[in-house]
Amino acid sequence: MSDTEHLSVQQATDLVDAAFRAASVPAPVARSVAVALVTAEAEGQVGHGFSRVEDYIAQVRSGKIAANAEVSTHLAGTTSLLVDAGHGFAYPALDRAIEEGGHLALKHGCATMGIYRSHHCGALSIQVERLARKGLVAIMVANAPASMAPWGGNEPIFGTNPIAFAAPRGETDPLVIDLSLSKVARGKIMNARKSGKPIPEGWALDRNGQPTTDPVAALEGTMVPIGEAKGTALALMVEILSTVMVGAARSTEASSFFSADGPPPAVGQFLIAMKPMDQSGFEGRLQQMLEEIAAMEGARVPGTRRIATRKMAEKGGLDVPLHYIQAIRAIIADGT
Amino acid sequence: MSDTEHLSVQQATDLVDAAFRAASVPAPVARSVAVALVTAEAEGQVGHGFSRVEDYIAQVRSGKIAANAEVSTHLAGTTSLLVDAGHGFAYPALDRAIEEGGHLALKHGCATMGIYRSHHCGALSIQVERLARKGLVAIMVANAPASMAPWGGNEPIFGTNPIAFAAPRGETDPLVIDLSLSKVARGKIMNARKSGKPIPEGWALDRNGQPTTDPVAALEGTMVPIGEAKGTALALMVEILSTVMVGAARSTEASSFFSADGPPPAVGQFLIAMKPMDQSGFEGRLQQMLEEIAAMEGARVPGTRRIATRKMAEKGGLDVPLHYIQAIRAIIADGT
Repeated sequence: MSDTEHLSVQQATDLVDAAFRAASVPAPVARSVAVALVTAEAEGQVGHGFSRVEDYIAQVRSGKIAANAEVSTHLAGTTSLLVDAGHGFAYPALDRAIEEGGHLALKHGCATMGIYRSHHCGALSIQVERLARKGLVAIMVANAPASMAPWGGNEPIFGTNPIAFAAPRGETDPLVIDLSLSKVARGKIMNARKSGKPIPEGWALDRNGQPTTDPVAALEGTMVPIGEAKGTALALMVEILSTVMVGAARSTEASSFFSADGPPPAVGQFLIAMKPMDQSGFEGRLQQMLEEIAAMEGARVPGTRRIATRKMAEKGGLDVPLHYIQAIRAIIADGT
Repeated sequence: MSDTEHLSVQQATDLVDAAFRAASVPAPVARSVAVALVTAEAEGQVGHGFSRVEDYIAQVRSGKIAANAEVSTHLAGTTSLLVDAGHGFAYPALDRAIEEGGHLALKHGCATMGIYRSHHCGALSIQVERLARKGLVAIMVANAPASMAPWGGNEPIFGTNPIAFAAPRGETDPLVIDLSLSKVARGKIMNARKSGKPIPEGWALDRNGQPTTDPVAALEGTMVPIGEAKGTALALMVEILSTVMVGAARSTEASSFFSADGPPPAVGQFLIAMKPMDQSGFEGRLQQMLEEIAAMEGARVPGTRRIATRKMAEKGGLDVPLHYIQAIRAIIADGT
């Protein structure tokens, strides 16, 4: 295993924050991005954590991410909030969407929030959980560069197009569901390519639509969806909500979230926030349902591991791979 | 093949309508139910069509369906509509939810509609399509008597918990997606039991959580979800939205949609209606996306077969199994 350095969540956040500020990212934006990345890392979602810092900063430097972008919001209706991320980071736009859209939902019963000209939004779980902590039931979807074909086809049209859901539980941590509509995360195939290992059959198809265990052929081909035609039907739903609904680039139009080259990805995110309609029964009956699942042999409540992992990190700190820390310290040293 | 009788959609609707009126169902309710059942039949969704008429009428006669129930609505917020189906049929409650909730969404940008004390809601595709024909993007979920376990568990907690989605396409028929979160419809296993045939492996588990090809063991066990743990996470989302969110019975609490015995199922339905936020780009860009899918070899746009089948029936009529027609005529003869 590679060497690691042990940091508290606070130290890790301050370090990432300092790296973005060293790259001339305005302080409030740097803070928003650092909090999102370190929270994802603390949840064990390492594909949305430290591993992104260098790529993000390269994109700030090349101008692909407009770090100085002002987020602007516009009411398309009483309860319909459009958020222009201005080709900047997704996180400050999500902060605004959750703040203003959450307020609308609490006031009116429900609200929808659409973000366009946006970028990689990291772990959706974190965003829906924030709405749930305001007492709201929340759904979030997002698109990403195309990697999944409609069922039966060979050409990528959809991203791995995640769906996240959260529900408030009073004093208890919210229930949080977060899943992509591909069988496995694309990052797993990227890791296999890096380490030169084959991937299990059933993860991906080559460019001719044939099953492959070669990660290079897989990355040139398409990801296998969950649930065959049903999975790609859900991916189409997510694609519509997060792109044409809000005026964002489609997955086929979006540039890479990793490379510093090319135009901004301009992807979209879409959120729905809703007050529980049955105010008196909601909390107790949800609690009962989740307790039944937790008590069932072999079953577990989705998301519990993720929140437990984060709480452990908040208490005991994080082991961060040393090469990430060194790269971040080099960025900070460069900028000072 | 069994004998059939050829009827126009209008004749079929009038016949089913007459059967419900003969069973003392008030005329507007009979009409709403007949339209929903015959539309499902015309779409080829025969599990939600003629096959339900006798079961519904037996439940009206036993008092399990309160056919005289007055649907009442209540605003839980500016854009949050609660609909009490009063233990009657789901369809008149859906009519109200779509009429009033559709109006709210068009006025304010989005609206949510929750129906409780409801019954079997048939094909969700029909309901979301109606919202799309008003120019709204729509999502609908519903629960049903428990038949699916959380991933890894053996006890049914969820129904097959469908998700439907529709998007308007101007002059073209809306895009409509409608899928259950089980690998196959439970009706397919019921049909296998009736005909004494084994079912393919992968459809269902026995009560010990083992794969089974015996339809009897399958009906005593649980349905296999799409996408393993991801499918049951989505089923949990649907369960929360359609039950504890709106004050409806959970899938574990719901009585059968088929048997005339027991208390009302009291299940729930939940709908979200949303105006496209990017008014200028939405329609053209959606059209472009769907054309790309339709043009791709091996792929197809979800729901196109269903709408084409219905249009064919609207033009050329329906072949209805004779035993259904005979049973319906007997009900009408009894009631007159």
